[in-house]
Amino acid sequence: MKRVGFIGLGLMGGPMAANIARGGFPLTVFNRDAAKAEPLRALGARVAARPAEVAAESEVVITMLSDVNALRQMANGPQGFLATAAPSKVWIDMSTVAPAHSREMAAAANAAGWHMLDAPVSGSTGPAKEGKLGIMVGGEREIFEAQRDVLSAMGSHLYYLGPQGSGTLAKLCLNLLVAAQMASLAEAMVLAAKGGLDLAPMGQVIRESGVVSALIDRKIGNILEGNYAAAFPLKHMHKDVGLMIDQGHLSGTALPLTGSVHQLFTAARARGLGEEDLAAVFKLLAELSGLVTH
Amino acid sequence: MKRVGFIGLGLMGGPMAANIARGGFPLTVFNRDAAKAEPLRALGARVAARPAEVAAESEVVITMLSDVNALRQMANGPQGFLATAAPSKVWIDMSTVAPAHSREMAAAANAAGWHMLDAPVSGSTGPAKEGKLGIMVGGEREIFEAQRDVLSAMGSHLYYLGPQGSGTLAKLCLNLLVAAQMASLAEAMVLAAKGGLDLAPMGQVIRESGVVSALIDRKIGNILEGNYAAAFPLKHMHKDVGLMIDQGHLSGTALPLTGSVHQLFTAARARGLGEEDLAAVFKLLAELSGLVTH
Amino acid sequence: MKRVGFIGLGLMGGPMAANIARGGFPLTVFNRDAAKAEPLRALGARVAARPAEVAAESEVVITMLSDVNALRQMANGPQGFLATAAPSKVWIDMSTVAPAHSREMAAAANAAGWHMLDAPVSGSTGPAKEGKLGIMVGGEREIFEAQRDVLSAMGSHLYYLGPQGSGTLAKLCLNLLVAAQMASLAEAMVLAAKGGLDLAPMGQVIRESGVVSALIDRKIGNILEGNYAAAFPLKHMHKDVGLMIDQGHLSGTALPLTGSVHQLFTAARARGLGEEDLAAVFKLLAELSGLVTH
Amino acid sequence: MKRVGFIGLGLMGGPMAANIARGGFPLTVFNRDAAKAEPLRALGARVAARPAEVAAESEVVITMLSDVNALRQMANGPQGFLATAAPSKVWIDMSTVAPAHSREMAAAANAAGWHMLDAPVSGSTGPAKEGKLGIMVGGEREIFEAQRDVLSAMGSHLYYLGPQGSGTLAKLCLNLLVAAQMASLAEAMVLAAKGGLDLAPMGQVIRESGVVSALIDRKIGNILEGNYAAAFPLKHMHKDVGLMIDQGHLSGTALPLTGSVHQLFTAARARGLGEEDLAAVFKLLAELSGLVTH
Repeated sequence: MKRVGFIGLGLMGGPMAANIARGGFPLTVFNRDAAKAEPLRALGARVAARPAEVAAESEVVITMLSDVNALRQMANGPQGFLATAAPSKVWIDMSTVAPAHSREMAAAANAAGWHMLDAPVSGSTGPAKEGKLGIMVGGEREIFEAQRDVLSAMGSHLYYLGPQGSGTLAKLCLNLLVAAQMASLAEAMVLAAKGGLDLAPMGQVIRESGVVSALIDRKIGNILEGNYAAAFPLKHMHKDVGLMIDQGHLSGTALPLTGSVHQLFTAARARGLGEEDLAAVFKLLAELSGLVTH
Repeated sequence: MKRVGFIGLGLMGGPMAANIARGGFPLTVFNRDAAKAEPLRALGARVAARPAEVAAESEVVITMLSDVNALRQMANGPQGFLATAAPSKVWIDMSTVAPAHSREMAAAANAAGWHMLDAPVSGSTGPAKEGKLGIMVGGEREIFEAQRDVLSAMGSHLYYLGPQGSGTLAKLCLNLLVAAQMASLAEAMVLAAKGGLDLAPMGQVIRESGVVSALIDRKIGNILEGNYAAAFPLKHMHKDVGLMIDQGHLSGTALPLTGSVHQLFTAARARGLGEEDLAAVFKLLAELSGLVTH
Repeated sequence: MKRVGFIGLGLMGGPMAANIARGGFPLTVFNRDAAKAEPLRALGARVAARPAEVAAESEVVITMLSDVNALRQMANGPQGFLATAAPSKVWIDMSTVAPAHSREMAAAANAAGWHMLDAPVSGSTGPAKEGKLGIMVGGEREIFEAQRDVLSAMGSHLYYLGPQGSGTLAKLCLNLLVAAQMASLAEAMVLAAKGGLDLAPMGQVIRESGVVSALIDRKIGNILEGNYAAAFPLKHMHKDVGLMIDQGHLSGTALPLTGSVHQLFTAARARGLGEEDLAAVFKLLAELSGLVTH
Repeated sequence: MKRVGFIGLGLMGGPMAANIARGGFPLTVFNRDAAKAEPLRALGARVAARPAEVAAESEVVITMLSDVNALRQMANGPQGFLATAAPSKVWIDMSTVAPAHSREMAAAANAAGWHMLDAPVSGSTGPAKEGKLGIMVGGEREIFEAQRDVLSAMGSHLYYLGPQGSGTLAKLCLNLLVAAQMASLAEAMVLAAKGGLDLAPMGQVIRESGVVSALIDRKIGNILEGNYAAAFPLKHMHKDVGLMIDQGHLSGTALPLTGSVHQLFTAARARGLGEEDLAAVFKLLAELSGLVTH
């Protein structure tokens, strides 16, 4: 079995790395906050002291980090893992970053003799634990095919999208729908409430209609229960929508609806809702329309 | 069984009236274009020459018309059906109109001694034929309860939302999600295409994710096949989004996302896409972003 | 001199009617709140008890009312002034209403044997008092030419725009710029403040640049002084922006920027700023961005 | 007199550098395309072969470049001018870049022992030639005061806004108004045209109203004449509006109107209008609304 390294053991990375270990791959991990590596040690993983050490022990290095700055710190520079001599090593970055940043990372990887795939995921902590994520992959097709075994330990649906940057672009396009469904659900519910409707039957109408998705079903629950504990923190979606807007700017794609969604999430975060679930955009809209909520 | 009248035998009204006939209710129908009444005559319905004649023959009058002007013409004035002496007759309007217009119609009905329900539907021609529409009802609860038999002939899900105008408000809130899902899907697909992704795998990613709804699944099909034959004409959605914006204006509800969607549909219609399916908003966005489509 | 009638003696109508009186035209006035007619009586005007009485005494009837409902009440029905026998009388409506409503009023007027001009104004209470309004006129050109004397008593700039409804359309287009300048000034000032800039030098930069207009100069003053006493109440601009959106919907004109402005004013009004000056949109945006203002 | 260096001799930089020369300051210039340096040589300037040579000859180095990448290439690295030993040299960057990039440049400058001012300008090529630009300055106040002589050779209005990045922030806020005035003028004119109004009288109404600015007056001329020769290329405004959106994202400022403007300029550029004047956004909107223009 391939020796695998994993850097970034957060809410998503932790369970994903655990599935690698459970899949029987010899695993070396690194996390800035070392405490988060302990559950992996319990599964038999080796815990490295530095990113470069992960690379030295592994044929494949997986990263799952919060943004491009974290990636640059782990990968580049004399301390970065790319500095490790690496004939034909493979870096699989599963973070959600801009396609331009995926290509920047790929160029750095290639220059250092590595192969690179961008492979962000669809699905939140539940599917991450169950190894049932969707994984959208950009890079050379042969490299993708050669890594099916590793990727399959984490995901049940693997998609090959095209050259480097294609995985992260597909992820942004998918998240565009997440953001729009959340914001439009919030508008519909506030419009209903301001017109005097009870939200429970309104939610039932939506849930039994042709527009319901698994996401909408869950988020109706959040709104009806007034439960905004973060499954997906609003500030992360704000970051992602900003990446969509940048991508639209650079690729010459007009995104009028997403432009409005971006400003909504900016306002929600500016008003202190960043740590709550993205469903808290309902609270921002309710407030904006003078609706008293409980 | 109650004697039922039905006015407005279009794409939706025709199959809905047919289900009333099949349900065993003695039925009288009227349509401005009389040819459309013939299939109902074949089912045993009486074809009236004037709206007032429908009312004279019926205890319950159902209308399914395109807009408030059509409603006013059928209901009001010396020729309108409300002029019929009507102790305790019931008018069920199933058209999609503004809540304010539902209340205007209800006031006219009440003044003429009628009861009134606004009861627009969720679902398109398929569910209409099968009698499996969702029906959102506003008006007095007892009147709604008393009409369950008639409504159940057309719909499998009946919802009581509240006083007059509540049914049409719920319908607008639901359609807000339809319009937003269509427009955001179009943005996601154009963003993907402009970035060089093939739309078939992108569509597959979406279809197997948590944002997929029956609507999105169908509309991905429309885009991939380049098939814009109208299941729901874009011009009708443009009208409906305009009603949402009016409702937001009147009720003091900020709808920034829907405001953007409104302008998109206005542009799409202005550029000649009104008679195509609402999925044609993809063509508008593709054009707007300089994407050559085939 | 022509005998002139004037209906609607509010903040704008009062001083406009006074200029008619000062211009030497025999004047009959009506206002629902009769107290507001007293200053006109002091200038020699006759005060009528009913709209119809104004028409009976006058060759030209001017209206300056808040919306189309007020117009309909004054003009139509058995009590309305149009009922007066009127071979070749002229109605000049100077209210800001939708072009479609101007045409509706014109049709009613023509049916009653009257001529009609729609002639809304540019400028606020200052120019109204000085007789220096801009007046945008729609209707038949000969009727416009024949009323230059009356219009010149109120305005220094007369514009002939085209057939009935053209005056109110031009007014909406002009007000679109007022609304956009106010909203964009508010965004610029909040963006500056959130980035740590003092607003006084920022205001000076704008005032000495190529984007300054008389409006922007005044509104910078409002923001710097925190003075939101209504020169033009925000709720009236909200109404006007709603008319622009309706006009765009009906005429097939995409107005993405104005669509956003509409939602901003809706939110500002929903949050209780309707009676303040339209400059209070700055307060809404500051709040929306989490800026503490004093 | 101080010895001054000037890097970047484009449409704006060329005439600005010429005014430095005419002001009697010993001048050294550099431009990647050396041909553009010839007019400065004719005014007595020394033409350097490399950026570092400019710094070696000068106490003050001015840059006027198209974006942050150009700045980084000129300033940083072993070939960059900051590498020159520089006790107390001053770098004045007059480019329009993001405030965050101004601070990045300032940090690099300070680390190299330089002082730094960000000092972008208000006004186009006319004021640049006449030395009548507005100049918005961020940085230490004493450094600003010490450079008044140099800045006054180029500008008639000098503004001190605050610490590093304040000048470029003020510039973005000012340009926000430029972009909004242009886009709203385009919407107003298209709304007028679609409603049947002639644009010449509509333009006159605006020009004689309280919303007219020098910018609006000029741009009405562009639209009426169908003249879109670039005074300010649309693609540059697209870049600037993108910077505003980024700044709003980072500083937590909701910019709904500017968000819409951003998408409009993206569409205009995507449809091939980038090299035309920013007034060409009128053509995009006209097309979007199905208006045939000549």
